[in-house]
Amino acid sequence: MAYTLQQLSDIEDIKLLKHRYFRGMDTAEWALVDTLFTDDVTVDYRGGGYRVQSSGKADLMLFLKNSFHSDAVAMHHGNMPEITLTGDDEAEGIWYLYDIFVDKARGSQTVGSAIYRDRYRREGGQWKIAHSEYGRIIELVSTLPADTHVTVQWLATRGLKPEERQDITHLISFGDGHG
Amino acid sequence: MAYTLQQLSDIEDIKLLKHRYFRGMDTAEWALVDTLFTDDVTVDYRGGGYRVQSSGKADLMLFLKNSFHSDAVAMHHGNMPEITLTGDDEAEGIWYLYDIFVDKARGSQTVGSAIYRDRYRREGGQWKIAHSEYGRIIELVSTLPADTHVTVQWLATRGLKPEERQDITHLISFGDGHG
Amino acid sequence: MAYTLQQLSDIEDIKLLKHRYFRGMDTAEWALVDTLFTDDVTVDYRGGGYRVQSSGKADLMLFLKNSFHSDAVAMHHGNMPEITLTGDDEAEGIWYLYDIFVDKARGSQTVGSAIYRDRYRREGGQWKIAHSEYGRIIELVSTLPADTHVTVQWLATRGLKPEERQDITHLISFGDGHG
Repeated sequence: MAYTLQQLSDIEDIKLLKHRYFRGMDTAEWALVDTLFTDDVTVDYRGGGYRVQSSGKADLMLFLKNSFHSDAVAMHHGNMPEITLTGDDEAEGIWYLYDIFVDKARGSQTVGSAIYRDRYRREGGQWKIAHSEYGRIIELVSTLPADTHVTVQWLATRGLKPEERQDITHLISFGDGHG
Repeated sequence: MAYTLQQLSDIEDIKLLKHRYFRGMDTAEWALVDTLFTDDVTVDYRGGGYRVQSSGKADLMLFLKNSFHSDAVAMHHGNMPEITLTGDDEAEGIWYLYDIFVDKARGSQTVGSAIYRDRYRREGGQWKIAHSEYGRIIELVSTLPADTHVTVQWLATRGLKPEERQDITHLISFGDGHG
Repeated sequence: MAYTLQQLSDIEDIKLLKHRYFRGMDTAEWALVDTLFTDDVTVDYRGGGYRVQSSGKADLMLFLKNSFHSDAVAMHHGNMPEITLTGDDEAEGIWYLYDIFVDKARGSQTVGSAIYRDRYRREGGQWKIAHSEYGRIIELVSTLPADTHVTVQWLATRGLKPEERQDITHLISFGDGHG
């Protein structure tokens, strides 16, 4: 069995969509990121000590802008996509994340992996993320070693400064057991 | 020159095959992993202090289940595939691995990279891994720092407990010089 | 809208081109790497304390051979490609890098990410890298911890020995502010 040209094109375009999501998030290109979600996008991100649940694009953008702030040293590499077309304008995707996140203000460092399970919908000819969830596979948290020098931090000047940030605690449940 | 639709489909399916291998291994989804190999699969994995050689699916599954055990904090990201179709039902692949492996019982941490060279065979319409070998490019081994907290470890509850594990030393040669 | 078979083939071939670049660089397969660039290739690599600018394949090969030397423990994973075909024989690509670089002689360790923006040109039926630039997103520099053992280092025997190396300082500007 072979895919059709349309199916292979859709798979490539959905990969591009998610690649832009990861790049846009780590570089705070919010105008780009805003184009990647459906208006009714839902997320459920489960980490070691947190669970993020949101509904609607406005809340998701609020969460992202206030998480990738000026103290964040962030890298999110989503690799090894498994895209399944489930309808003419619907698809599902599995991705395997590797991420590094340093919070300079807290002096903490998190290294981890996660499996994403997404749903995509084509709207007006564009594939968009309609639902995204992940569960952590590994997560290691430590103090940033004293002799580690952050020599480049893109978000330092592009991320929200402390006085610009908004409260997002209503989107997050803290505590263990979400992994 | 362009690929045919069948060739592009085969390349995509072989990528999916290997993506499932890495995901299934790190998450101990052995029912999934078992479907990814030919019955006569052979492997040759050469690390800094070990060489794993096995022949047949039973031995490979034995090795994997007893390596991704309940003390393992494991992440294997196989990236940058170079797939070459060598026949209607045969193909070869090169992949570039990045992996993290912590053994909580030993308190050791390994970070490394490797180049995989695989052979694939289509059986009953499904692409399967018929041969897989890797050689390490870099490997760094250290003690897990005392202040590193493993806040999520998927395999803790899904991996084999010490009393459930079987001997796999007949599949492994220990010693330097395998890198 | 669907891609044509030729377009999908070109996208796959351009991914292969860049995958070989990363693999060839980290393994010092210079005969392979030499085939991947146009003769007039230009680069502009901006890191935390350096900027590399070169023009022409000879200078780029000189830079690479003398950077991936026998003291280098190097891993460069270029992931999440965004390829755009801009003409029959021209294309652009965005890649998201994760890299580890240890200099054993200096005892230093760099972990970082970067966004590549490339241009590709097809010459004699082969896609080649005509321009490549990157800017760092994160970069963390530290002393290699005393208890970290480099148990495999491919470049130790394949990379240029100190007495074989050539001067490349004319290709590099040192100093902050290039991130």
